[in-house]
Amino acid sequence: MTEPFKIGVAGLGTVGVATLRLLATHANLLAERCGRPIRVAAVSARDRARARGVDLAGIDWVADPAALARRGDLDMVVELIGGANGAAKSLIEAALAAGKHVVTANKALLAHDGTNLAKKAEEAGVELAYEAAVCGGIPIIDALRGGLAANRISRVYGILNGTCNFILTEMREKRLDFARVVADAQKKGYAEADPSMDVDGIDAAHKLAILTSVAFGCEMNLAGVYVEGIRHIAALDIGFAGELGYRIKLLGLARLTPHGVEQRVHPCLVPVAAPVALIDGVLNAVVAEGDFVGSALFEGYGAGGGPTASAAVSDIVRIARGVRLPTFSVPAAKLARLPVSPMERHIGAYYIRLMVVDRPGVVADVTAALRDENVSLASMLQHGRAPDDTVPVVLTTHETEEAAMRRAIARIGAIAAIVEKPCVIRIESL
Amino acid sequence: MTEPFKIGVAGLGTVGVATLRLLATHANLLAERCGRPIRVAAVSARDRARARGVDLAGIDWVADPAALARRGDLDMVVELIGGANGAAKSLIEAALAAGKHVVTANKALLAHDGTNLAKKAEEAGVELAYEAAVCGGIPIIDALRGGLAANRISRVYGILNGTCNFILTEMREKRLDFARVVADAQKKGYAEADPSMDVDGIDAAHKLAILTSVAFGCEMNLAGVYVEGIRHIAALDIGFAGELGYRIKLLGLARLTPHGVEQRVHPCLVPVAAPVALIDGVLNAVVAEGDFVGSALFEGYGAGGGPTASAAVSDIVRIARGVRLPTFSVPAAKLARLPVSPMERHIGAYYIRLMVVDRPGVVADVTAALRDENVSLASMLQHGRAPDDTVPVVLTTHETEEAAMRRAIARIGAIAAIVEKPCVIRIESL
Repeated sequence: MTEPFKIGVAGLGTVGVATLRLLATHANLLAERCGRPIRVAAVSARDRARARGVDLAGIDWVADPAALARRGDLDMVVELIGGANGAAKSLIEAALAAGKHVVTANKALLAHDGTNLAKKAEEAGVELAYEAAVCGGIPIIDALRGGLAANRISRVYGILNGTCNFILTEMREKRLDFARVVADAQKKGYAEADPSMDVDGIDAAHKLAILTSVAFGCEMNLAGVYVEGIRHIAALDIGFAGELGYRIKLLGLARLTPHGVEQRVHPCLVPVAAPVALIDGVLNAVVAEGDFVGSALFEGYGAGGGPTASAAVSDIVRIARGVRLPTFSVPAAKLARLPVSPMERHIGAYYIRLMVVDRPGVVADVTAALRDENVSLASMLQHGRAPDDTVPVVLTTHETEEAAMRRAIARIGAIAAIVEKPCVIRIESL
Repeated sequence: MTEPFKIGVAGLGTVGVATLRLLATHANLLAERCGRPIRVAAVSARDRARARGVDLAGIDWVADPAALARRGDLDMVVELIGGANGAAKSLIEAALAAGKHVVTANKALLAHDGTNLAKKAEEAGVELAYEAAVCGGIPIIDALRGGLAANRISRVYGILNGTCNFILTEMREKRLDFARVVADAQKKGYAEADPSMDVDGIDAAHKLAILTSVAFGCEMNLAGVYVEGIRHIAALDIGFAGELGYRIKLLGLARLTPHGVEQRVHPCLVPVAAPVALIDGVLNAVVAEGDFVGSALFEGYGAGGGPTASAAVSDIVRIARGVRLPTFSVPAAKLARLPVSPMERHIGAYYIRLMVVDRPGVVADVTAALRDENVSLASMLQHGRAPDDTVPVVLTTHETEEAAMRRAIARIGAIAAIVEKPCVIRIESL
């Protein structure tokens, strides 16, 4: 047995503790798979006194995470602090500068600064590994860099946020509105006290930016991701979608278009027969479409201590074995700088739900606005009548350009009998 | 750019031709991902004159595949001939002995002889790669050796044969019997002229034996796989299964039990809510269950030129990059020799369909046989009456040991009013 592979772990929250537990539980198994033992030499976290239920005997405690980067005895730093700036960023930069491998679960930092960090890692001849940053237990980064590496990927998409998927599933199954379900999810620990990173699509956007870079071999471009969350979805919309043969999912989608790379995170109506339509609850799923492989789907738990630790330790194992790969499929210096395909150029079908005062002529005004923008109507749905009262009216369109849709919606929203902001959801045929 | 990585390809059938086409189409992309170009220096196939629609200019033609192993200029041999013996086996053994890496799609050869070949490869310090041998486009070998490597895998199972999945899907959707659907599948090219490798479960057994070895780090044991095909499934059974809330799928399942490793391939009733229940047509799917990751599902095309070439070339890319991994998760010399958990010890629920002469007392005889073996009845289904004529009667049981079930079925089959061999299908809750 050769020298142990020595690591320092920064951040002992849920994922950090699960990572230490995994490394301890499977010490022999991992040593066999790596050809050498993995030894946790040092850890760093804010509160030394806190009980974590994991044995830290024989592991050095380092108060300042940046000190891990300065230790001469470490081969690798595992960053599980989180956050796009601050301690996590300083630690990773210092570790790479000191020639140490880095494993991280930090999607925000990578989405903001991944290209630069990858360049620094590759210049230093070390690995920057981040399977744990994208959909936890789903080994999608591994697949895009490895098992699917023979393909030109044309599209990658999926359910990238388990909290939103849980909320939308609960809204459908229990016919409850967003606010009520979020409150429940917070109680169960599936949603944060401030749920905006999840429900506003920001977390999914971070993951999508990383997937885009690996799938297409291009520079990270978080600013190029169009983002819309799920706060405006009502239980009503989920019901109508069901009637029309769809489920509502928050998807992240990236594809190559003639105008450049399109990256978008927003709620979608997906046909019930689509591969991701029936993936419910906190599960995540990613579909990669390649020119030779066709479509490949990966489904699993996207968050939580166990799945995220599984990803982080699998990265540790790979690096300890001596495997060296370009960070984002191709060397960082060769990552393409692709233009962003503007959302206004997006072509797709739409679902529109209007709250309408039920009186003659309103639908004529709405359909006239669509006609004037050359938007072709596919279906219309209204249940019952309520003269002079407010009723929901649902329209779906055929494929049209987003810019035309936006103009039509601006006109429709200005109609006096439309009493709420129109709820517009894109339809993805997938 | 460093020296090209030189390969020889043996076998130019559908997969061989797709592999050459992929390598030509993506020459630049692959060179960027590998850090060096991949060059096909030689090919070997039976019939030089045959038009294959792929450009062989500048590639040496070698009549005898074994001659590829003797060429001093090759880094790797790609074996796409197939078959557990003969030319494929000689070629691989010669290539490994000559210190050349091997990529193969040959599940039969690996399932029979994988442990020995892995030992030879590892002794020679070269890679033996076989992603293309198991479920084509699904990078499951990559995942088990890589992205899931941190886990102890407790169970791996899935839809491992696209032909059977297509046949069962067609039988359900079109309410047609096995023979009719097989004839259709043969016409469409989804089934071979002699379909026995597929429909008798042999192909799935080969894949399962390989998956077992990678998942559990144990020696290959094809003889330890219990195998049952789908010939005895009638459209009738698929209908009854549907009524009971199940789909019928041919699954391969391997798990660790207190008695050893259980490997089995047979048709199963799976609840419609199970992750693999709704995966239809020629698609394959594999689920791996690990102690930290939970459950991870992989779905895609398991056969065909494109997906299989994608797998073979992804292996080529990884090896050309310099990645070296133990063939089956741990070094071949350390693979465990696990006892086989005998099928008689299997615990599960059962579906039994009897063709019964409709007269008083028959059900009493059947249920008495079950009672005498301590098999507990869960449900019974009979539609309509047909006095003195033959009617199907369906029973489902609670969990019981296979040995008891077999004794009960032997008794039931001997009842005079049971006019056909009972159709017994295992129920998997998954």
